[in-house]
Amino acid sequence: MIDFKIIHKDKNSRARAGELHTSHGIVETPAFVPVGTQATVKSLTSEDLQTIGVQVLFGNTYHLHLRPGEDTVAHFGGLGKFMGWNGVTMTDSGGFQVFSLARYRKFGKQELPNDDGQADLVKITEDGVIFTSHLDGSQHSFTPEQSIAIQKKIGADIILALDQCTTYPITHESAKADMERTHRWAIRSIQAMKHKGTFNQALYGIIQGSIFADLRRESAAFIASHPFDGFAIGGVSVGETKQEMHAAVERSIPFLPENKVRHALGIGDVDDIFEIIERGIDTFDCVTPSRLGRVGHVFAMPPEGNLQNRFRYDITKVQFAQDSMPLSVCCDCYVCKNFTRGYIHHLFRAKELLAYRLATYHNIYFIIQLTRKIRTSLLENRFAALKKQWLG
Amino acid sequence: MIDFKIIHKDKNSRARAGELHTSHGIVETPAFVPVGTQATVKSLTSEDLQTIGVQVLFGNTYHLHLRPGEDTVAHFGGLGKFMGWNGVTMTDSGGFQVFSLARYRKFGKQELPNDDGQADLVKITEDGVIFTSHLDGSQHSFTPEQSIAIQKKIGADIILALDQCTTYPITHESAKADMERTHRWAIRSIQAMKHKGTFNQALYGIIQGSIFADLRRESAAFIASHPFDGFAIGGVSVGETKQEMHAAVERSIPFLPENKVRHALGIGDVDDIFEIIERGIDTFDCVTPSRLGRVGHVFAMPPEGNLQNRFRYDITKVQFAQDSMPLSVCCDCYVCKNFTRGYIHHLFRAKELLAYRLATYHNIYFIIQLTRKIRTSLLENRFAALKKQWLG
Repeated sequence: MIDFKIIHKDKNSRARAGELHTSHGIVETPAFVPVGTQATVKSLTSEDLQTIGVQVLFGNTYHLHLRPGEDTVAHFGGLGKFMGWNGVTMTDSGGFQVFSLARYRKFGKQELPNDDGQADLVKITEDGVIFTSHLDGSQHSFTPEQSIAIQKKIGADIILALDQCTTYPITHESAKADMERTHRWAIRSIQAMKHKGTFNQALYGIIQGSIFADLRRESAAFIASHPFDGFAIGGVSVGETKQEMHAAVERSIPFLPENKVRHALGIGDVDDIFEIIERGIDTFDCVTPSRLGRVGHVFAMPPEGNLQNRFRYDITKVQFAQDSMPLSVCCDCYVCKNFTRGYIHHLFRAKELLAYRLATYHNIYFIIQLTRKIRTSLLENRFAALKKQWLG
Repeated sequence: MIDFKIIHKDKNSRARAGELHTSHGIVETPAFVPVGTQATVKSLTSEDLQTIGVQVLFGNTYHLHLRPGEDTVAHFGGLGKFMGWNGVTMTDSGGFQVFSLARYRKFGKQELPNDDGQADLVKITEDGVIFTSHLDGSQHSFTPEQSIAIQKKIGADIILALDQCTTYPITHESAKADMERTHRWAIRSIQAMKHKGTFNQALYGIIQGSIFADLRRESAAFIASHPFDGFAIGGVSVGETKQEMHAAVERSIPFLPENKVRHALGIGDVDDIFEIIERGIDTFDCVTPSRLGRVGHVFAMPPEGNLQNRFRYDITKVQFAQDSMPLSVCCDCYVCKNFTRGYIHHLFRAKELLAYRLATYHNIYFIIQLTRKIRTSLLENRFAALKKQWLG
């Protein structure tokens, strides 16, 4: 199980610094949770992640269920032991990938449907979702009970209830129906947790409601009224504007108990990190730092990095070929202490495996360090000043 | 410059343990030289290589010339500084890649021509070789003088004279003509070295002669009679049998001065390592450990590894899915201490970047450790026993 302690509250916002106590150690919050989809943060070892200062890792149940399968993960002692990671772990329910992968397969990344047109690849019923594997076309299903059973085998410290991810844009009527199903699934998930598993796990409930203020409030109030160990805000990163994303968090938080931990699913842009922490979020996961790193988009601190360039630049551009500076001038990560922009530029141009590794390492370090700085600023009552320094 | 000291000679063979003193430290020989073709040993950092115990790295002039270009490498202070490697470096002349890449492009890897049918992509004249880049089709040339000039900019501690790599099979007449051209190019390379460069570099001469005993002897005697700092035996890995490869080394060695270092180009199989060291080789480079690692072929020590399975097995096979053992039971490398076969099997099945990194690390560690064991066995007068233990 987990225990969340608030260490310090910000005077001017809902932001707080806390400690999430788990059976695999304490997570100092706010904390960024890197995503290790298939039991690996792409190209990095668990030792790298520890050196970077990562405290908690996020695994994807959809992928782990399909390969290597939850029984294999359980055979090795659960997700952490399987990948050689001694820290804290969390997994999602698998629902998000089912919905998003299915959408992409049918419509391509650029043409998302206006409604749930993915019905022929993903079938949603009151019972759960039936879907075909992107690996071999085999048929699978996630009911709330199955998702919990699979996550019990995967064995992360923190697991998530199955929710129905809504498409975007969406009508109020459809969003309400999806939310209500998410609520019924939440209750079934709590029931399913009563079956004892091998591991000592905490369950988070998920708040949905799309961009609709009344639904977000209703969902937060409903989920908060049930005995979850923590809360996750879902559906804030799919197709909505940043303002809508921040509003979704802002509307949900007041309904959640102070003394329980709050997670934002799929958020990781620098400005969003400040905004959601300010609104009371404790932890957040995102693939952005690693995914951007693998295409050569590397993070840079102010003044090089700013809101206009989204705190990043493309190291593959020819202007960096003979640049002797580190990726980010004030960064003290292993990559910035040992390699030049010119060398990393060359590795990307030559499509060398080390390119992806160095950029991923730097980008994750960057977000971890930023979050650590934010935590320190909270403890020292200067969060607003730090936010202004970064976002202007 | 370099200085080679013999520390101990084996009583029953030509094998010796030595020290190669360079301006970037001492290389304890026999030593394996991993190949970092494009200024990176694929997927590994220089810190990894240091932890593994690598003493000297091999870069490929053909690749570095085309990308990022020798001027860029020079701009960053030479190969070692460019890639963040503080140890010893060596580069080849570029010739081998010109000949082999050209052959592959025209005929495919499975259909090597019987003669130098690559003439339309690589034109060989007395002056040098003219070739087209595999990257963009641009035309380039390597004369002995140009190869030295390029290698002076790349700045490795040890550089190689341009040689004419022969095809295989080949007639005695053609092999003799190629060898004689290699000899004329060797003299021009020594001349070219007299132009002062930025770096303190040693030049190796290359012995050719294909599978013909008289030519190998003639070539060794000729090259040995010129003021090279060390000697490399070339053309022993292209198309010949292992027996012919060992014979080519055996025939050359007696003509080389005892007190100069001897390198075998492109050799790295476990049995060959024993055989060439026994015949008097001090250092050898090979892409095999890293290249095999990236397709999931991992090395194993006796008794798991043996001559029949070539000291390796395919970790991608389904039998390893739930195997909790390390890659090699008695290996004490970082990978074997921290990860199971089952996890690495999963990474390969999922095509995860970490798979290539872990397998490469383990395989290079394996060969480095084997070579270190051989050195210790020489110092302790039990080389023959170690060879028998490994090869039976």
